Amino acid sequence: MEKYDVIIIGGGPAGVTCAISAHNFYPDKSIALIRKEKISLIPCGIPYTMHSLDSVDDDTLPNKLIEQAGADLIIDEVIDKEGKILELKSGKKIAYDKLVLAVGAAPIKPPIPGIEKKGIFFVKKDRDYLVDMKAYSRNSENIVIIGGGYIGAEMADEFLKAGKKVALVEMMKGIFPTTMDQEFGTQAQQILEDAGATVLTGRRVESILGNEIVSGTRLDNGDEIPADMVIVSVGAKPVLSMASKFGLAVHPNHGIWVNDYLRTFDKDIFAIGDCAAKYDFFSGEFSNIMLASTAMAEGRLVGSNLFEIKVMRKFLGVLGSFSTKIGRTAFGASGLSEQNAKEMNMDYTLGQATTIDRHPGKLPGASKLHMKLVFARYSHTLLGAQMYGGDSVGELVNMFSVMILNKMTDMDIYNLQIGTHPMLSPSPLVYPVINASVDAIKKWYEYKPKKEDK
Amino acid sequence: MEKYDVIIIGGGPAGVTCAISAHNFYPDKSIALIRKEKISLIPCGIPYTMHSLDSVDDDTLPNKLIEQAGADLIIDEVIDKEGKILELKSGKKIAYDKLVLAVGAAPIKPPIPGIEKKGIFFVKKDRDYLVDMKAYSRNSENIVIIGGGYIGAEMADEFLKAGKKVALVEMMKGIFPTTMDQEFGTQAQQILEDAGATVLTGRRVESILGNEIVSGTRLDNGDEIPADMVIVSVGAKPVLSMASKFGLAVHPNHGIWVNDYLRTFDKDIFAIGDCAAKYDFFSGEFSNIMLASTAMAEGRLVGSNLFEIKVMRKFLGVLGSFSTKIGRTAFGASGLSEQNAKEMNMDYTLGQATTIDRHPGKLPGASKLHMKLVFARYSHTLLGAQMYGGDSVGELVNMFSVMILNKMTDMDIYNLQIGTHPMLSPSPLVYPVINASVDAIKKWYEYKPKKEDK
Repeated sequence: MEKYDVIIIGGGPAGVTCAISAHNFYPDKSIALIRKEKISLIPCGIPYTMHSLDSVDDDTLPNKLIEQAGADLIIDEVIDKEGKILELKSGKKIAYDKLVLAVGAAPIKPPIPGIEKKGIFFVKKDRDYLVDMKAYSRNSENIVIIGGGYIGAEMADEFLKAGKKVALVEMMKGIFPTTMDQEFGTQAQQILEDAGATVLTGRRVESILGNEIVSGTRLDNGDEIPADMVIVSVGAKPVLSMASKFGLAVHPNHGIWVNDYLRTFDKDIFAIGDCAAKYDFFSGEFSNIMLASTAMAEGRLVGSNLFEIKVMRKFLGVLGSFSTKIGRTAFGASGLSEQNAKEMNMDYTLGQATTIDRHPGKLPGASKLHMKLVFARYSHTLLGAQMYGGDSVGELVNMFSVMILNKMTDMDIYNLQIGTHPMLSPSPLVYPVINASVDAIKKWYEYKPKKEDK
Repeated sequence: MEKYDVIIIGGGPAGVTCAISAHNFYPDKSIALIRKEKISLIPCGIPYTMHSLDSVDDDTLPNKLIEQAGADLIIDEVIDKEGKILELKSGKKIAYDKLVLAVGAAPIKPPIPGIEKKGIFFVKKDRDYLVDMKAYSRNSENIVIIGGGYIGAEMADEFLKAGKKVALVEMMKGIFPTTMDQEFGTQAQQILEDAGATVLTGRRVESILGNEIVSGTRLDNGDEIPADMVIVSVGAKPVLSMASKFGLAVHPNHGIWVNDYLRTFDKDIFAIGDCAAKYDFFSGEFSNIMLASTAMAEGRLVGSNLFEIKVMRKFLGVLGSFSTKIGRTAFGASGLSEQNAKEMNMDYTLGQATTIDRHPGKLPGASKLHMKLVFARYSHTLLGAQMYGGDSVGELVNMFSVMILNKMTDMDIYNLQIGTHPMLSPSPLVYPVINASVDAIKKWYEYKPKKEDK
C-alpha cells in the first residue's frame, strides 16, 4: 500500500499553498494532493470567465505549482478513512502520517420555489459547469442575479460588459451588505445603474417563474422581472460531509472545528480554507468570511507546522481584506466597517479623506480616491479601512491590513514616512491614509465624553 | 509690531504641512508662513511640467492649504533676526514665539568649465525659471541631462515623450546609483534606450562646449555630445545661510543640526525639510536623502509639538521611500538596498519574486512585477524592498515602509493576510510580497554559518 508523509485533500488555493509550504519546510517528506476535479480553477477569477477572459480555461490554477512542490497529484475522491488509511473511489487505499482537509465550500441554495428550473446557475468552482454557464449566457438576453455581495456585483459588471440586460436583487438594504458601509454599496450601485443595470435592494426573490425553463423571478412585493437566466450568489457553506464521516467535530454553519494551529480534534488532521471554522481577528467569535487569501495564510501556517512547530505563531483570526473593481472603480476593505464596529458595540472614532490619486490631478490616469478609517477611541488603534478609487486601491487595502495586524494607532500613521510620485499616487500633502488619520485625531481633540462617563 | 505665536519660513511641503499640523493641534495660536516665491510648486511634479502638464502653473501648490490652516501668508524675504524679532526685506519687523525654518535646498552646481553658458538649466523650484526652461526646451532638439538619479531619469523620459533627442550622462556605474541596486538601474536604462535615449554611465562631463550658448558637452573620455540645452540634476544642498546668520549650528553638507524632536540649538527654533540634517533610520548616521514625504513627516511632528510634547515620539530617522515611473514601468524602493546593506556591513539574506500583477495574467492591464527584499539574517527583520512593475508599485512601496517601521520579520510577512483581486493584483498564490519572503526563509534554512562563526 502506498504511503505518504503528508496527504492534502483539496486542490484549491489552501491545499496548493499548504503543499508548497510543506515542501519548503520539510523537503524530505513525501506529499500527495488528492482532488476530484481534473482541472482546478482560480476562485476569484471565476466571474471574469464570463466575459473578460476568452475561455474558462484561462482561469486554470496550474498543476505546475503542485509539481514544483514535489507533490504527487492524485485525481480521485476520498470516500472513507480507517485509522490512518484513506479509501478512494477508485478502490485504491493510501496511508498518511499527517492529513490536511482543504475541501472548500459549496454555494448556498436558498429555498426559493422553482430553483431547480433550467437556466438557474450557481457560482461553482467547476470547470465544466462554468463552460456550460458561459455558453448559456451567450444565448440569454435578460439575466437576473440574486445576491449583491462582491461576487454578485462582479457578475453583474461582467454581463453588462457583455451587453446583457442585468437585474441585481439584494435582500439587505444595500449591496456589499456585510463587507462595507452603506455609502460604499451605494457608490457601486450607482456605477452598475449607470452601466444600465436594474439594482433592487431590500427585496427578496420569492419564486422563480417559468415551466421547465426559467422565464423570470417574482419579488416579495409582487413585481416580476423577466429572465432567461438566473445566477444565484448568496454565499457558500463549508463542505462538512467528509469531516463528519471521519468523526471530527464540526459546526453546521461555521465549519470544521480547529484550534489556533488549525488542528482538528484529531491531532494528525488539520483543516484549512473554507471548510475550516474561522474566528474573527477582533472578537474571537466565529466569522463567516471566506477568502482565498485567508485560506492561503492558513495553508502556509499548517504547511510549516505539520511535524514540529517551526512557526511559533498561532493563526490570529480572520481580518478580512477584500478588493474588487466595478466598472472602472476599485473598492477595498480591511478589518471592521463602521457597521461592524457598531454591531460589536465598540467605541470608535472615524477618519475620512477624499483626494485625487495623481498629483497634480491633471496628470493622466487620475481618479477620485475616498477613504474611511475606523479607530478604537480609547486605544487609538486602527480597526478598519474602507475605500474606493483607482486601481491603487488593490495594494492600499493590503497596506491597511499590515497596519491593523501591527496594531498601529492614529499617531503611528500620522508619523508615517511614505513615498509618493506624481504619476502613481496622491500628493504627499493630501495623502489620504495620513489625512484620514489626521481627521480622526482632530475629532479626538474635539471629543467630550458623555456625562455618564465622568 | 506684528507678532505671531508661530512663524514658518518656507512655503514648500514641509512648511505648509507644519502650518496645517500646528493649526490642528493648537487652533487658538496665530500662525504666519513667510515665503519669497509668489507661487509655490509641488516639487515632485516639476519634471512633468516639461511635457505631460500643459503649463508650469498646473503644478502649483495651492495657497488654499495655507488659508485652511488659518495661517497668514506673507510674501517677503527674511533677512535678519534679533532676539525673537525677524527683519524682512520690505523693512517690516515681525515677532515670533516659535520659529520653524523650512527653507529647503538648492541645486548643486558642479564645477564644470562652461556651466554658466546660456542653455544650461538646473531643476529649481522656481515658477518663472521653469517657464523659461520649458520655453527653451521647445526650441531645442538635442538635450543633454547630467545626472541619472530619479529626477534626471524623469526629465529624460519627459523630453523623449516630447520628441527630443536625449542623452543622459551619469558618473556612477549605473542610473539610480544611490537609491537602487544596479539591476534596477539597468532596467530603467533599457527603457530609456528603447525610447531612443543615449545613456552613458561611468562617464563624467568634463566641459561644456560652445561660445555664449551651449553647443555640446565633452566627456572624460574625450567624446563630444551635441546639445542645444543641458539640464544639470546632480542633487541638492541644504540652504544654510539664514541658519548660520541666526547663529545655529549647521553641518556644511548635511544641514542645520536638529535633535530627535527637530529642535535646533535654540529651543524655540525648529528646522524641517531639506534644510534640516537627516539621520538614517538604520544607522543613525547623517543621511543625504531629501524627500517631500520625509519633509512632511517632520512638518507634522513639529507642528504637533511646538508648545508641548503632544506626540511623544521622536523622529525615527529617514527611511527613504521612493517611487517613480519611467516609460510605462514604475520603480520603487523603501529602506536599504543590497548595496546599502553591504556598505553598512550588515549580514543580510535576500528574497526575490517575479510575477504578473493581475490574475489570470491574460486580464487587461497586466504587467510584470519584480521584487527584491533585504532581511537582516540573524534578527529576520525586513531592512529594505526594491521593485519594478505596473502602477501598483506606487502603494506597494508604502506597504513596505509600514512593514519596515514596524520591524516586521520574514515570518510576520509569511503570515500576512492580504486581499487580492483579478483586476487589481497578482494571484494570492504568487503574491510577491509573501513569495519573496518565502524565498528568504528558504535561504535561511539552507544557510550554513561560516566555520569561524562556530
